[in-house]
Amino acid sequence: MTESYDTVVKGGRLATALGTFDADIAIRDGRVAALGETLKGSEIIDARGLIVTPAGVEAHCHVAQESGAGFMQADDYESASRAAALGGTGTIVPFASKTRDRTVAASLDLYAARAEGRSVLDYAQHLILPDAAPATIAAIPEAFARGVTALKIFTTYDGVRVDDDAMLAILKAAAAHGRLVMVHAECHAIIKDRIATLIAEGKTHPRFHAEARPREAEEEAIFRTLTLARSVGAAVMIVHVSTAEGAQIIAKARAGGARIWGETCTQYLALTAEDLDRPALEAAKYVCSPPPRTAADQHQLWRHLARGSLSLFSSDHAPHSHDAQGKFATCPEVLETGEEPPFTKIANGVPGIMIRLPYLFSQGVMAGRISLERFVALTASNAARLYGLAPDKGSLAVGAHADLTLWDPEARWTVPDEALGDRTKYTPYAGLTLTGRPVLMLQRGIAVMRRGEVVVPPGTGRRLIPSTPDLSEQPGRAPRSATSAR
Amino acid sequence: MTESYDTVVKGGRLATALGTFDADIAIRDGRVAALGETLKGSEIIDARGLIVTPAGVEAHCHVAQESGAGFMQADDYESASRAAALGGTGTIVPFASKTRDRTVAASLDLYAARAEGRSVLDYAQHLILPDAAPATIAAIPEAFARGVTALKIFTTYDGVRVDDDAMLAILKAAAAHGRLVMVHAECHAIIKDRIATLIAEGKTHPRFHAEARPREAEEEAIFRTLTLARSVGAAVMIVHVSTAEGAQIIAKARAGGARIWGETCTQYLALTAEDLDRPALEAAKYVCSPPPRTAADQHQLWRHLARGSLSLFSSDHAPHSHDAQGKFATCPEVLETGEEPPFTKIANGVPGIMIRLPYLFSQGVMAGRISLERFVALTASNAARLYGLAPDKGSLAVGAHADLTLWDPEARWTVPDEALGDRTKYTPYAGLTLTGRPVLMLQRGIAVMRRGEVVVPPGTGRRLIPSTPDLSEQPGRAPRSATSAR
Amino acid sequence: MTESYDTVVKGGRLATALGTFDADIAIRDGRVAALGETLKGSEIIDARGLIVTPAGVEAHCHVAQESGAGFMQADDYESASRAAALGGTGTIVPFASKTRDRTVAASLDLYAARAEGRSVLDYAQHLILPDAAPATIAAIPEAFARGVTALKIFTTYDGVRVDDDAMLAILKAAAAHGRLVMVHAECHAIIKDRIATLIAEGKTHPRFHAEARPREAEEEAIFRTLTLARSVGAAVMIVHVSTAEGAQIIAKARAGGARIWGETCTQYLALTAEDLDRPALEAAKYVCSPPPRTAADQHQLWRHLARGSLSLFSSDHAPHSHDAQGKFATCPEVLETGEEPPFTKIANGVPGIMIRLPYLFSQGVMAGRISLERFVALTASNAARLYGLAPDKGSLAVGAHADLTLWDPEARWTVPDEALGDRTKYTPYAGLTLTGRPVLMLQRGIAVMRRGEVVVPPGTGRRLIPSTPDLSEQPGRAPRSATSAR
Amino acid sequence: MTESYDTVVKGGRLATALGTFDADIAIRDGRVAALGETLKGSEIIDARGLIVTPAGVEAHCHVAQESGAGFMQADDYESASRAAALGGTGTIVPFASKTRDRTVAASLDLYAARAEGRSVLDYAQHLILPDAAPATIAAIPEAFARGVTALKIFTTYDGVRVDDDAMLAILKAAAAHGRLVMVHAECHAIIKDRIATLIAEGKTHPRFHAEARPREAEEEAIFRTLTLARSVGAAVMIVHVSTAEGAQIIAKARAGGARIWGETCTQYLALTAEDLDRPALEAAKYVCSPPPRTAADQHQLWRHLARGSLSLFSSDHAPHSHDAQGKFATCPEVLETGEEPPFTKIANGVPGIMIRLPYLFSQGVMAGRISLERFVALTASNAARLYGLAPDKGSLAVGAHADLTLWDPEARWTVPDEALGDRTKYTPYAGLTLTGRPVLMLQRGIAVMRRGEVVVPPGTGRRLIPSTPDLSEQPGRAPRSATSAR
Repeated sequence: MTESYDTVVKGGRLATALGTFDADIAIRDGRVAALGETLKGSEIIDARGLIVTPAGVEAHCHVAQESGAGFMQADDYESASRAAALGGTGTIVPFASKTRDRTVAASLDLYAARAEGRSVLDYAQHLILPDAAPATIAAIPEAFARGVTALKIFTTYDGVRVDDDAMLAILKAAAAHGRLVMVHAECHAIIKDRIATLIAEGKTHPRFHAEARPREAEEEAIFRTLTLARSVGAAVMIVHVSTAEGAQIIAKARAGGARIWGETCTQYLALTAEDLDRPALEAAKYVCSPPPRTAADQHQLWRHLARGSLSLFSSDHAPHSHDAQGKFATCPEVLETGEEPPFTKIANGVPGIMIRLPYLFSQGVMAGRISLERFVALTASNAARLYGLAPDKGSLAVGAHADLTLWDPEARWTVPDEALGDRTKYTPYAGLTLTGRPVLMLQRGIAVMRRGEVVVPPGTGRRLIPSTPDLSEQPGRAPRSATSAR
Repeated sequence: MTESYDTVVKGGRLATALGTFDADIAIRDGRVAALGETLKGSEIIDARGLIVTPAGVEAHCHVAQESGAGFMQADDYESASRAAALGGTGTIVPFASKTRDRTVAASLDLYAARAEGRSVLDYAQHLILPDAAPATIAAIPEAFARGVTALKIFTTYDGVRVDDDAMLAILKAAAAHGRLVMVHAECHAIIKDRIATLIAEGKTHPRFHAEARPREAEEEAIFRTLTLARSVGAAVMIVHVSTAEGAQIIAKARAGGARIWGETCTQYLALTAEDLDRPALEAAKYVCSPPPRTAADQHQLWRHLARGSLSLFSSDHAPHSHDAQGKFATCPEVLETGEEPPFTKIANGVPGIMIRLPYLFSQGVMAGRISLERFVALTASNAARLYGLAPDKGSLAVGAHADLTLWDPEARWTVPDEALGDRTKYTPYAGLTLTGRPVLMLQRGIAVMRRGEVVVPPGTGRRLIPSTPDLSEQPGRAPRSATSAR
Repeated sequence: MTESYDTVVKGGRLATALGTFDADIAIRDGRVAALGETLKGSEIIDARGLIVTPAGVEAHCHVAQESGAGFMQADDYESASRAAALGGTGTIVPFASKTRDRTVAASLDLYAARAEGRSVLDYAQHLILPDAAPATIAAIPEAFARGVTALKIFTTYDGVRVDDDAMLAILKAAAAHGRLVMVHAECHAIIKDRIATLIAEGKTHPRFHAEARPREAEEEAIFRTLTLARSVGAAVMIVHVSTAEGAQIIAKARAGGARIWGETCTQYLALTAEDLDRPALEAAKYVCSPPPRTAADQHQLWRHLARGSLSLFSSDHAPHSHDAQGKFATCPEVLETGEEPPFTKIANGVPGIMIRLPYLFSQGVMAGRISLERFVALTASNAARLYGLAPDKGSLAVGAHADLTLWDPEARWTVPDEALGDRTKYTPYAGLTLTGRPVLMLQRGIAVMRRGEVVVPPGTGRRLIPSTPDLSEQPGRAPRSATSAR
Repeated sequence: MTESYDTVVKGGRLATALGTFDADIAIRDGRVAALGETLKGSEIIDARGLIVTPAGVEAHCHVAQESGAGFMQADDYESASRAAALGGTGTIVPFASKTRDRTVAASLDLYAARAEGRSVLDYAQHLILPDAAPATIAAIPEAFARGVTALKIFTTYDGVRVDDDAMLAILKAAAAHGRLVMVHAECHAIIKDRIATLIAEGKTHPRFHAEARPREAEEEAIFRTLTLARSVGAAVMIVHVSTAEGAQIIAKARAGGARIWGETCTQYLALTAEDLDRPALEAAKYVCSPPPRTAADQHQLWRHLARGSLSLFSSDHAPHSHDAQGKFATCPEVLETGEEPPFTKIANGVPGIMIRLPYLFSQGVMAGRISLERFVALTASNAARLYGLAPDKGSLAVGAHADLTLWDPEARWTVPDEALGDRTKYTPYAGLTLTGRPVLMLQRGIAVMRRGEVVVPPGTGRRLIPSTPDLSEQPGRAPRSATSAR
């Protein structure tokens, strides 16, 4: 019998869980069937001179979700997944968001419907919980059974934040199912006090957004979360770590065996608080929470990324358009009067679902700050493992989904001053010059993105049902059972 | 053309330094040609139920070398490589040893001759330097050109120890060629002072060997080595770390970016100073330097192994037979008179080249202390990378030498009270019960060991010429140029 | 003019802010008038063979205060001050306690009345705040003007605990007046969760009191308090630190310049959680919060006391009598039925106002754990400085109040199994053998306690009005303005 | 009997190591007889508006000593003691220096003779040992019996440096007598290697002196010294700590209970390596070893001084005149040819015995970096205690020698560009503006310095015979036996 495959990607340099080496990669039935020297297939993709990585897994992005102020974000599953695909991402995990007056089941129904049939990429959903009412806690097992990957809570923001008692209840419920709780960790009391003081002093320009959310607010909330989690044996993911102190608490706790992980995002490596020091309408483009910090923090975050004390690199894509429907939705008048919008009225968050991978590839790998293997871990493998999408996603191992991104490591390009495939109408990274660019992305063996074009229709992506994740923190140990697609 | 391979190892669970998954491995011309789901080959090896790892790389062992006291060790390249093969090791890197009255070239000639045509395994050689005379330093480039992997120095032992000036000269010479210097780090002055005190007090039983080499002797010498290396930009490997403090210095320095690596050995995990508290002739079996320490040290060493602050797990195989030709070579009369040999006269070092891999597989992986991936890193991949033997050795990547060890993870066995394939006539690990055992080892695709038997003749092993190693400490980054065999 | 003094204490060994040396101490008008070799006075006190220290300042004790459950504690200002005097203490600073339904002013009036005319010792009062209502915050300046030394808040206990917002408001108000906030720091949510779990499991014996308040509850609350205080520039005193982790957070923050101080108490050095493992009625004698911990914690607390990272040693005297009016006030029936009182119903806290100084003198100074100078700092000087009672109190310097305690360092005695001068009917330290005992205590030059007898009538003590304390953390720097007595 | 005293210093603010307060000081028979409010005496000294401290104890200065190159330093006991007195110092402890070809006894005789009858201040002598020959070790008990305070060794400088074996032998001998060993800690091998490299590259300007003695040389030697001392239970004083890393090692070791102390000097707070970046002849004024470092080091050294992890502040006065007899003694020709003297030929060390106290008073106390009490500890009390001169020296306690310095804290002055009372012809601190100046210094009750004039003849100072020092590290604990004068 002739040993032939559906597709063979030939001549590339594979960045895999096996290390980096030159080999062909053969695909059969949408999965990696072989890695080898000279494999044969019906279709051949020429990867000479290219680097082949697992397609990215974006596990922190907001899609088709209402903002805290109630207006709908600019991106739906179609636009967000298209933007992600353009950047080399193959899987997205947005949020389903419960509100205090909507049940878990209704919230899952609502967000399942919003996603259904629209995404060009495979996807799953985390679940945001704003309360720990008995009915909420009781609904958690069913939520996991329906495919929720992880829970997410906030320690700040009125309407969604949970207090210590609620945090403990949710941590315990997640731990009982072996799942992570993602935590937005900023101390509400400190921030509230700062905002009141700034407002009283008339300091409302967006530059004061950074002062309003001081670094110790993050430090305190991370330590609190860590300690509450330890007290009940729960596992937590601190999202969007922005400060050296925050990363240090996580690193030290991990070294001591605590089950805590950390994530940082593009904006905390690429921006600083000084980016808020612009005319107010323009500064609004850089308003996110936690705020960007200092160059010294950037340096420390890079170190923690390289050394593994931070485990994920995400976008926290928050698609508020730079107009009266997005960034200025609660103060649309400023666009006409020319008044300065106070920082408290500007919608929080920046877009970045496309740029995440090219940014880290360029400023991390090509700039020598992290290895190619670490890039794969930070952008794909770790998220797949921690959120129960492994071994299908995040790997080039035999048997995994053939979700591949091919990179031209020589391509040099400048980020344009326009939206990067999403609907926010801007990017905070305009003008940045990057080295390296994804030129092809396959999902389950089929080309989804080719040279800057998405070549599949909406609905091509499938909903993923995660397995129980591997939180044992032994890199590479595959979970026993596999993800099933649809 | 039919896509067929020479050999296919089918149905195993592949354990690599960076991931574990089920796949077949196809071999062609002695190299890994493909990893895949259902590969076809002329010869089929059934690996169902087995774990497949890269064959071990043993980079710290003494073979066919004179002891400090001048007598020849019990093992030559044939016996040592056979014992290693029985344990699942595929490559050995013993030492060529310069003496103060023999040139580098003559020393290399001598040890090349001792190895030639005898080893059943591929091998390379490190070079021990006891001096930094101008002619010695001048000969270092040629030594590397002839295939020396790394240099090794001692801070203690009269006859071989180097002072600070000589250490700096050797560190600089190695750094100029991008090579590691292995360092036996124990403070000579502290040990000398302790020995004199113990002798003066009549404390000569082997149990005082541990007191004679206190933990601060290791701590001081590691810090000194680290600092001298930093001062000249050199890279160092601290061999046989035995104390928590020593491992901690290395861990902290690495976290700060220092180019320092650490190794520990079976004896520091399996033995303690209390093992020396036996009748003197029996206690001699456990005399090695540094001495075994405490259970608390063992616990910390395991943590550092698991977390990556220690990079290698070796045997420091020192084959002194338990008789008048080995352990008691300088005091043979005690075997007749029944007198206690003073600890200063007992040959230093323990055998362990066979047991290294089964020990770590059982007490590390099967006992849940380290992952299978970390096992591969500690026993094969890291040594290959750090000593310039990658990408041929230490990996299952496509293109690597097909050096594979197949493990039966269920096999349970007790270490017998006899030599483990070597010529020392004993093992310090007799009576230990282990889980997991290597059942087959291939080198370059050919079976070398099968179910406890070495099935190839002496001389099957080839001399390896290393490339410049990758000391960039980014796991998985392959060196640019490859090793060439013979 | 003849240079003579009212009283001269002759021939003692002075333990002073100047160091320790042999000298006479002369008193005039109730103050230290001279230290010298051979001073002359109308009255001579023979101190040969004795050690003379400043009389103790007890700044953490509960007197004439209702418990959380509403019943009155056993000691009033007369009995508590007498017990304190018996132990060598010269000044006490109990609490005035605001409740949520009583104003600050009314609370101060109430507690002023409870103290008026009853104390044998000089005294001041801290103010407990259970809320940060606008009227409460507005009343703080007046409270300080009326003589409140410091504020105190709790992070746990329903009815009295403050949330993060309230803590911030109180911290800011105290900081505006340069005063300390004392904080009982235990995480309410963790404790509440543990209690619910233990109750659900039927674990109600007093031994579970320790499990109900785990060490991480203290760790979390100390870090939270520290960070909130830093965020608003406030100075805090963490009272009754019980764990190594808690003390470590304080030590590290202080090394970094944070304005945080720590206190520990007799019960955390003398007792462990195992003391709760007795028949329930007897175990009740040892129930306090935080609970006693482990021998390892004791060891670390001693180190922090010796090195200055803990600044105060107090009693946290909580005079619940061991009867139906005290320890069992909410479950008096158990005394008749013989049932086990659940740990949640036993009144919290232990007596100790008398034993504090003898305990530290014996187990600290005489046992060689701390110096005599450190003893003076921990028991008198630091409290005087931090609570605004210096330079009058806590010192033997010329000009200070002549509050002296004379110690017989040779006296060896066993703590009897009965109340130590207070009205609680028991002591948790019965049977302990101590070395050293106070034999005379003078206040403002007048003998208050002599050989175990209080020799002045109630009302001899004066109310102290503190000055702004010195929180600059430069030991020995005297505040600019002085305390005035009455 | 009228209680009157010889002298009373009236109305000053007394600053002692452990407290500050206003009081008179009465002196009788050369000792402090009383501290009090209104003391009477035959002679009255008006100290109103002044601060009274114990006169300084300068325990690290070179006087009447040959340099390593063999030429005699500029200052003898008369000139050095006069300069010291001008700065408010009351006691000096220079070195007797053994050479390898002169016995201990002969060396002590020689230096006793050099001192005899010349000093205006009380003095003692440390002993430098350049070897650990058996006769040297055997002579140590006699040296202590003759009044040697402490031993001193060097880890660098050919001719004087000791190797590890010799260091251990000397540490053991000192420990057997309860004495400190002062250690000049810089790694010889690192420095030797750097000098050779710099010379080979033609980098001989004095600015390369700093590069020749890198910070890791200090770090390594401090850690080595610490560890060797720990291994034999010895107590060590690391002199002239110049780097943050060095101070950190000491701080951490002390926190762990090690018997190690650290000293820094004026030049490491006031100068940086940039001071060497001047024309070579001028730069020579700033050449000392270790070299001045960076502003960041200065900041850390201040922190360690303030927190007590550094215990002494000294001058390391090295009186090389800025001429052919001193700084250029081995290259006098450069003064004529105008050639640049290579850094290896410039005599090492700077003068500073006068400026030490005014510098620390101004830049430490008046600038708010350290308290007045810490100033006294760093400049007088600690040296007295650690070198066996307490309780006579370094204290204002009753019974101590009446060695007092009166400071005008308001005096503002600029350091002139000329020698400060010594014979070196320059000061490296010219132009510095200081606040505070000593206006009177008494020794044993007699005025020695008054308003910038020394008012006693040479020989007024007495030789001190130290007692065994108190190395128990409990501040304030007085040694049992006293110093005797002459």
